Amino acid sequence: MKQPDSRYQELAVPGVRALHPYLPGKPIEALEREYGVEHAIKLASNENPLGPAPAAIAAAQQELAGLARYPEGSGYRLTAALARKHAVEPAAITLGNGSNDVLDMVARVFLGPGREAVFSAHAFAVYPIVVQAVGASARIAAAQTDNHGHDLAAMAALIGPDTRVVFIANPNNPTGTWLAEPALRRFVAGLPDHVIVVIDEAYFEYVEQADYPDTSRWLAEFPNLVVTRTFSKAYGLAGLRAGYAVSAPGIADLLNRVRHPFNVNSVAQAAAVAALDDSTHLEAAIRLNREGLQQLEAGFEKTGLSWIASVGNFIAVDTGQDAAGVYERLLQQGVIVRPVANYGLPQHLRVTVGLPEENERFLSAIERALV
Amino acid sequence: MKQPDSRYQELAVPGVRALHPYLPGKPIEALEREYGVEHAIKLASNENPLGPAPAAIAAAQQELAGLARYPEGSGYRLTAALARKHAVEPAAITLGNGSNDVLDMVARVFLGPGREAVFSAHAFAVYPIVVQAVGASARIAAAQTDNHGHDLAAMAALIGPDTRVVFIANPNNPTGTWLAEPALRRFVAGLPDHVIVVIDEAYFEYVEQADYPDTSRWLAEFPNLVVTRTFSKAYGLAGLRAGYAVSAPGIADLLNRVRHPFNVNSVAQAAAVAALDDSTHLEAAIRLNREGLQQLEAGFEKTGLSWIASVGNFIAVDTGQDAAGVYERLLQQGVIVRPVANYGLPQHLRVTVGLPEENERFLSAIERALV
Repeated sequence: MKQPDSRYQELAVPGVRALHPYLPGKPIEALEREYGVEHAIKLASNENPLGPAPAAIAAAQQELAGLARYPEGSGYRLTAALARKHAVEPAAITLGNGSNDVLDMVARVFLGPGREAVFSAHAFAVYPIVVQAVGASARIAAAQTDNHGHDLAAMAALIGPDTRVVFIANPNNPTGTWLAEPALRRFVAGLPDHVIVVIDEAYFEYVEQADYPDTSRWLAEFPNLVVTRTFSKAYGLAGLRAGYAVSAPGIADLLNRVRHPFNVNSVAQAAAVAALDDSTHLEAAIRLNREGLQQLEAGFEKTGLSWIASVGNFIAVDTGQDAAGVYERLLQQGVIVRPVANYGLPQHLRVTVGLPEENERFLSAIERALV
Repeated sequence: MKQPDSRYQELAVPGVRALHPYLPGKPIEALEREYGVEHAIKLASNENPLGPAPAAIAAAQQELAGLARYPEGSGYRLTAALARKHAVEPAAITLGNGSNDVLDMVARVFLGPGREAVFSAHAFAVYPIVVQAVGASARIAAAQTDNHGHDLAAMAALIGPDTRVVFIANPNNPTGTWLAEPALRRFVAGLPDHVIVVIDEAYFEYVEQADYPDTSRWLAEFPNLVVTRTFSKAYGLAGLRAGYAVSAPGIADLLNRVRHPFNVNSVAQAAAVAALDDSTHLEAAIRLNREGLQQLEAGFEKTGLSWIASVGNFIAVDTGQDAAGVYERLLQQGVIVRPVANYGLPQHLRVTVGLPEENERFLSAIERALV
């Protein structure tokens, strides 16, 4: 007799049969529950150690009086605030329950069986998942050999008649590598008309390099461009799930058709609107991150570890061995980082920049974990 | 030259090209903004006029300290609480960003081009949307002629070799009609093995009829059953977006593959867990609803209007004319109800049971609006 599970498998569409869901970072509560550890720290999900702006928390607080009401289906206030920020019309905005939600909408609208998506090796793990979920094919370009970053020439070479979407993470997670304006602009300009290019700028706010582009300003020039951003990283609102895309209104119209009307909840919308207004808090987060990256790099240097130079709020360090054991020994010390074997980097661990004392605790712990 | 919009249309998958998104009820802020009306009331989205349990608000409040952290991807605490409530294993639970999210997951897993879904005329508007979004075909059964409720024999007659999903709303929105245990059980028992049956119990808590079934208790008997519930209605948490499905673990495994790992945010998870514990508040909401339904029916009777007998927290009243004008004249009086022409009921308006004074205000307003 068949297992019941295999029976349902056969009823599922082909894409879902072969789908493995996203593996999130281990939550602190889960570690403490499973390992009996106390005072654990989590540097595993690229969260903002400063938290959100106080004004965002206050706005969330205010919203608690109206929980019985559905959010506005259009996300009117947040959409309007984002349209102002990007100097586009509200019809150019698509709200996401995190930017992952928008990435999924792109796949649902433009991909499916017989269609292809192109992205880089070591790119964000959600790209292969959303592509697989709709039964499309992934064409994965080899990365740069020096730093594991996107190789745009290799990506361009994979684009063919069935390609509908290219995903680019700038900067990329988990490598922290980034693409400069001239090269990325040439790549986008060279794409055929039947290809939508998604530039995932989840870590945009952290990047301070002079020729790092704000591609949301390219929309007038490249109508096939979809730029995604999130409130989960520099804005410190990962718990609330708010992200968005900016694109041509014609694309946003299609994305909004598959968007669930209440996908960003009331509390998230209110907090995100308030977060946009507090540039001081954002600057403090960026400064803390810059200093934390330096602290981690200095620690790695001292321990003799190499790393991938990063412009994000995280850094991938080469443990010089299979990283699974190091990860485990860090957990035992109450320090959660992120294994990235599923990103094709089995020797690396990705560590989120934390508060100075968290970075220090991680550096001491990894020294012990390496033995 | 082509319009840019039509160019993107052609790039979209066929299902999305023909897709029209869900139309939510008009929010109070939108009415006040657009009509310059003050002190508007909304009886349009089947929200709980009592709001959520105070303990749920307090739990949401507590969660505001941790907004920078991602929710647990597995929704550990809420999943555990729901598993306890339904006496199933946690692996039987699928969390949704509202139960609409779960309905969409069912479509993504089991439907697609060449596959069919069966549901009733005048059933919840999200069914045709999720079916269309994945490019599947909808087979819509004629409703009962007396009360517009589901006709199970007509639905059974539409099930064929390509049917993969049947959607049943019990009670149904917007009609408020319901199916009794013996008939529904016979229907489910008679389904072929290749058909998943979704029983959408969004309004479960309001129903007080003795032979109204809790189909979540049928899971051991019918492994192809998916029961959906929500915190948006009787639990008063529409603003936070939390719903779920209970099913065989083999089905939940597939649904969870297409579920976004953080689909229910931290605040929503915390509030939902707390809401489950407050049966007193829930009972008060049910009592208020029962009395409100009686108040509305008495008002309709006095005005000479007929209605569809409802067991939900809403009632569809026959305006005896094209309801669009009546709806508009209600808006002008600051009263928002729900037109249901898109449900095939162009003469009806669906009104949510409100506080006694809101019901009274609606009854006065509709008398004026009928002229």
